[in-house]
Amino acid sequence: MRSSGAQQAAEALTCGEAQRAGRGATCLATPEGAWKIASSLNYRHLDGTVVAVVQDAESGDVLMVAHMDFVAVILTLTTGMAHYYSTTRRRIWLKGETSGHYQIVEEFRSDCDGDAVLLRVRQTGPACHLGSRSCFSSPNSTVLRVTRR
Amino acid sequence: MRSSGAQQAAEALTCGEAQRAGRGATCLATPEGAWKIASSLNYRHLDGTVVAVVQDAESGDVLMVAHMDFVAVILTLTTGMAHYYSTTRRRIWLKGETSGHYQIVEEFRSDCDGDAVLLRVRQTGPACHLGSRSCFSSPNSTVLRVTRR
Repeated sequence: MRSSGAQQAAEALTCGEAQRAGRGATCLATPEGAWKIASSLNYRHLDGTVVAVVQDAESGDVLMVAHMDFVAVILTLTTGMAHYYSTTRRRIWLKGETSGHYQIVEEFRSDCDGDAVLLRVRQTGPACHLGSRSCFSSPNSTVLRVTRR
Repeated sequence: MRSSGAQQAAEALTCGEAQRAGRGATCLATPEGAWKIASSLNYRHLDGTVVAVVQDAESGDVLMVAHMDFVAVILTLTTGMAHYYSTTRRRIWLKGETSGHYQIVEEFRSDCDGDAVLLRVRQTGPACHLGSRSCFSSPNSTVLRVTRR
């Protein structure tokens, strides 16, 4: 971990707070369970993170890719709201903290070597900061498709 | 680029070879077009790579996460077969070169800030080296799911 978990946690929602705020989040793990899962991952990516792939739980569309450090994993699992680690701003963020476009986590999966996780979420509004539903359908995106006859 | 593109390209299939080998791949771009797209990406991840999320074109399941350097992007677009850069083996690989479990690319998308790409593929056999269809449903995977009443 690069920064103080206690300090970062203070900025984030607890599950009770998320539930009281009417965002419909449900915790995925107890703090103890979350700690165990977070400890099992391999934070080998930028700034000691795992890659997080975020998928729309309804449509199956891939919405975005982000990074999670140990604390972001703990906060995501214990609050049910997606938290990430920004490698540019070098801090934890609650997805939606500025935009209001929260991600309520329906499913969390780790991959075979523990350096990537998949979140299936209910996305409020657009996932992309450019206003697109998905970061892969943004105005900046290149899209190439094979058309078969 | 960390290594010689010409040397790496020699190990990979050309589109004509992939087509002759009966793998059903179709090029997504000309070499010139592929170069332009590869040049537009931001290789800010491990070892000068972008993150590649791989999604099953039929089921929509996320199969795996890998990395692509400049050359892997070029080879993927010009052959229609997924190529990655292994950050552990420090070389380009054609997915399936050892296992025979190739990925034929149906769609290529870049994200809003150009540091991640999404491949929608036709996957031959399991995507995971542990034999699972997806790396996120491997024997090593942790899966947590919110059950709503």
